Amino acid sequence: MQIGFVGLGKMGFNLALNLHRHGYEVVAYDVAIDNIKNISLEGVTPAYSLIEMCQQLDGRKVIWLMVPAGKPVDDCIELLVPHLDQHDIIIDGGNSNFNDSVRRYNYLKSKGIDYLDCGTSGGVEGALYGACTMIGGEDEVFNHCASVFRDISVENGYLHAGGPGSGHFVKMVHNGIEYGMMQAIAEGFEVMEQSKYDLDLQQVARVFNHGSVVRSWLMELVESAFSKDPKLDTIKGVMHSSGEGKWTLETALDMGIPTPVIALSLIMRYRSQQDDTFTGKVVAALRNEFGGHAVEKVVP
Amino acid sequence: MQIGFVGLGKMGFNLALNLHRHGYEVVAYDVAIDNIKNISLEGVTPAYSLIEMCQQLDGRKVIWLMVPAGKPVDDCIELLVPHLDQHDIIIDGGNSNFNDSVRRYNYLKSKGIDYLDCGTSGGVEGALYGACTMIGGEDEVFNHCASVFRDISVENGYLHAGGPGSGHFVKMVHNGIEYGMMQAIAEGFEVMEQSKYDLDLQQVARVFNHGSVVRSWLMELVESAFSKDPKLDTIKGVMHSSGEGKWTLETALDMGIPTPVIALSLIMRYRSQQDDTFTGKVVAALRNEFGGHAVEKVVP
Amino acid sequence: MQIGFVGLGKMGFNLALNLHRHGYEVVAYDVAIDNIKNISLEGVTPAYSLIEMCQQLDGRKVIWLMVPAGKPVDDCIELLVPHLDQHDIIIDGGNSNFNDSVRRYNYLKSKGIDYLDCGTSGGVEGALYGACTMIGGEDEVFNHCASVFRDISVENGYLHAGGPGSGHFVKMVHNGIEYGMMQAIAEGFEVMEQSKYDLDLQQVARVFNHGSVVRSWLMELVESAFSKDPKLDTIKGVMHSSGEGKWTLETALDMGIPTPVIALSLIMRYRSQQDDTFTGKVVAALRNEFGGHAVEKVVP
Amino acid sequence: MQIGFVGLGKMGFNLALNLHRHGYEVVAYDVAIDNIKNISLEGVTPAYSLIEMCQQLDGRKVIWLMVPAGKPVDDCIELLVPHLDQHDIIIDGGNSNFNDSVRRYNYLKSKGIDYLDCGTSGGVEGALYGACTMIGGEDEVFNHCASVFRDISVENGYLHAGGPGSGHFVKMVHNGIEYGMMQAIAEGFEVMEQSKYDLDLQQVARVFNHGSVVRSWLMELVESAFSKDPKLDTIKGVMHSSGEGKWTLETALDMGIPTPVIALSLIMRYRSQQDDTFTGKVVAALRNEFGGHAVEKVVP
Repeated sequence: MQIGFVGLGKMGFNLALNLHRHGYEVVAYDVAIDNIKNISLEGVTPAYSLIEMCQQLDGRKVIWLMVPAGKPVDDCIELLVPHLDQHDIIIDGGNSNFNDSVRRYNYLKSKGIDYLDCGTSGGVEGALYGACTMIGGEDEVFNHCASVFRDISVENGYLHAGGPGSGHFVKMVHNGIEYGMMQAIAEGFEVMEQSKYDLDLQQVARVFNHGSVVRSWLMELVESAFSKDPKLDTIKGVMHSSGEGKWTLETALDMGIPTPVIALSLIMRYRSQQDDTFTGKVVAALRNEFGGHAVEKVVP
Repeated sequence: MQIGFVGLGKMGFNLALNLHRHGYEVVAYDVAIDNIKNISLEGVTPAYSLIEMCQQLDGRKVIWLMVPAGKPVDDCIELLVPHLDQHDIIIDGGNSNFNDSVRRYNYLKSKGIDYLDCGTSGGVEGALYGACTMIGGEDEVFNHCASVFRDISVENGYLHAGGPGSGHFVKMVHNGIEYGMMQAIAEGFEVMEQSKYDLDLQQVARVFNHGSVVRSWLMELVESAFSKDPKLDTIKGVMHSSGEGKWTLETALDMGIPTPVIALSLIMRYRSQQDDTFTGKVVAALRNEFGGHAVEKVVP
Repeated sequence: MQIGFVGLGKMGFNLALNLHRHGYEVVAYDVAIDNIKNISLEGVTPAYSLIEMCQQLDGRKVIWLMVPAGKPVDDCIELLVPHLDQHDIIIDGGNSNFNDSVRRYNYLKSKGIDYLDCGTSGGVEGALYGACTMIGGEDEVFNHCASVFRDISVENGYLHAGGPGSGHFVKMVHNGIEYGMMQAIAEGFEVMEQSKYDLDLQQVARVFNHGSVVRSWLMELVESAFSKDPKLDTIKGVMHSSGEGKWTLETALDMGIPTPVIALSLIMRYRSQQDDTFTGKVVAALRNEFGGHAVEKVVP
Repeated sequence: MQIGFVGLGKMGFNLALNLHRHGYEVVAYDVAIDNIKNISLEGVTPAYSLIEMCQQLDGRKVIWLMVPAGKPVDDCIELLVPHLDQHDIIIDGGNSNFNDSVRRYNYLKSKGIDYLDCGTSGGVEGALYGACTMIGGEDEVFNHCASVFRDISVENGYLHAGGPGSGHFVKMVHNGIEYGMMQAIAEGFEVMEQSKYDLDLQQVARVFNHGSVVRSWLMELVESAFSKDPKLDTIKGVMHSSGEGKWTLETALDMGIPTPVIALSLIMRYRSQQDDTFTGKVVAALRNEFGGHAVEKVVP
């Protein structure tokens, strides 16, 4: 089976290779020519433009997009559409907002092109050795591609979640949960790191991973991180985010569902990106106003 | 009426003066001799030791303590007890934990000495020109001192809340509310300060204070703060705290009552005292482990 | 000066009357004919259609909209535009999202019609006796209407905040702050209500309003509420919301600004609208799974 | 090796059996005679009093306590002490507060008796087939008992965390993390359950457990729970708690460490135990006071 593959970043490169190793004839394109060359060294068929990629695909085309969420996906779809035939299939395997996926499904439907949204989890290692995939879209389209999802995923690691958008929806919530779990774990380790006990945090993570209630892949990654840098001395505690936690919260707000832990996980990420806060300045100024409590002065 | 007064810090000095100006014969003591001298310049009778203070008080002694919460109050009580007679009255006007006040009430009761706990709000200005006082203790003892509370408070600004500890309890909750209100106000001003609109925040605070739902003394203080430093450029956003918000949360936890806003007000104060967080390091390390997301490195 | 007035709900009726009492010639319309009749009894000129209203306005028309946020505002503008001349002025005095206001400003600008967005605070009483108004829009347009805002507001209670949208932006943040302040106050009163002390909560609110740091209009309203129902026994604790708290949070999220207290105020409102939660079911099920902790069963 | 075992509840029974199956000569006592009889049917030596238990232990006694945290542990220690010799060892394997464990260590030290605190995780299944144990105490004492911890734990599943109290401290934090992880997972599933997609939540949990970032034992338990009750229709969402989440938060507060997610996990548990809230009543009353927003009335 042939697969057109667009986007050879960290995740895409590994996923394309994963497909290739499972016997798919992958025709891969990226905006960065080096990425195309590198993957061709692995035996993957290179394509140096989207058109060239489409021309190399026979029959009902299946094209996997692994490009940044937002405009790049729309741009890519616009460029592909002229080269697609009725019922060719675009799979968006990136981190798109599920509302965008529903919109894109409807747009492509109006042009006779099929579409699946696929949330992909498991990190860069998973992309290569076995991912976790959550797919939204029509049954017939999913069934046509089912072997693809089965083969690139770990055993039992794929799910046809439901109609259009549901794959990215479930993946979005997955990431919301992930934010909460990570923050919970991290808070716990801060309490331990600051405690009067001189704990070996790598050993604590290790024991947590053997028989405890909180054993998890994330805890294994904590153990791994401490094995490289026992006090994380070299790492700044700046927590970036790429959108899905925010979307989970926004979706919950739209639905009127209380998700305080997911909300605070996100909010603390934003807080971590600030050195000083205007909120803090106002509170400090107020304490000074009514109580004469000294403020700390900014050193010019 | 005579009043022994112990503790001439910012609040105590003004409160002693307030009493003096209302015609009370205040005999004032402080551990810092300068404070004693300064208040004697205002016409207040100085005492250079607790014993000397007690000796100058006739009849049923009334002694107002305005010393830091915790050990200083206990120490002061220990030093006073030998010089007190049955039904002499100690009023703790400081920010003591209400559980301590209950304990002290019981301890003094066992010695035949009367006790009132008085939460005092209104800041340093209020201490001088009219405070807000919340008093806990027995009826007879409160009634004996009622005129004191009436005179130092603004009109309608004192309340015999209930039995022993209730004065400090109500004051504790007052401060918990205050934390939440301050944080809410401050968050709103951060949103405005960072917005695309070039808002004059002093003017915003001014208009909020004239007819809006959020008009309040705290908002007046916001206006005052911005009048001195329009962008609070000179102030660091470090938010200290003195215990009562924490006690409110701890009390709520003991009662199983959800107080998320008071909790987060306190938690964000703690966060403001950290430059970097171990929590952030752990989350950043995890994102790097599973997603290859670059961490920001600590610059040595 | 003439003013066309659209929308005679609780706020609009009072505001129209306020204008009338300040000597403006108000021509008022509402979708509900009873509202029109009622306000005509107060001496306000009735109009039984938007066209009729426009026809009665001479010179540069000034039309105040006080209709529900969202589609009603757009619909109203669509119906008005054909009857407006260049530089006639629409003032949206309702609770519109500031992003909508910016969009409407630009739309009307393209048609040569002027526009101001005005956030109005102070409740229904304020609407009649003196509101708090925050206005966004161009200087010339604001200046033309400045006396209107001055007259319907309490002294010092109006502000030309900035360009288009800024009035509704500042009002939105005002409401976000209001959510936080209300939740903080309410949490404190729950702690007091559940405490071992038999506190008279009306008296507590009263004393808080005389000299304390938390004195505020909201606390006066707390006192008023307790004066009517000392334990609030007749009121269910369901907290509805009308959008501005949510918009404040969404705006903060878009700006990457941490507003935990405003977030939690909103989230707890959503929580109050649920009888039982799926979140709770999942946690209870998990505790049963790993610890054998009994779950509470739903009674059919 | 002999082990005295006190407390045959869900966890204790399984743990005693686990020890027995690993070849230890377990002498078991419980306050409930049925529990003693039941475990004797499994070949464990019964003891019908603490004295009898002690009398059956030779040499340096090792006694494992698995009784409810708090007073029962202190009571049990008081009853045991007269029957212990110098350097006999008490292991507290229950969920004691680490501060209590430090206190008990010091108390027993003063009597010449050795003490280890052991946090035990893994649920009731883990207690039988392989637990996760975190031990605090002196090296010599730990080393004497090391084989016990090794044998009852899964491979790599035990850790000598540090000095006295550290075992229960690490276990406390483990539970704090667990609270946060559970709440994060549960919030995500509520968002999915309420969504427009008709998701099969068991299948979602299943796919999350195969290759995703959030794969974890807790997620496996979610899958298991949904396999029994696909919509959790029979379970009320009341989330009880047994102390360790609260202690984690209190400890963090004492240390000035921000743990918003752990805090909110706990707070939402408390909220789940309320049908209606006074907080909600106050906010609803306030909205009525200033905006005339109708309150929902309590149906008598």
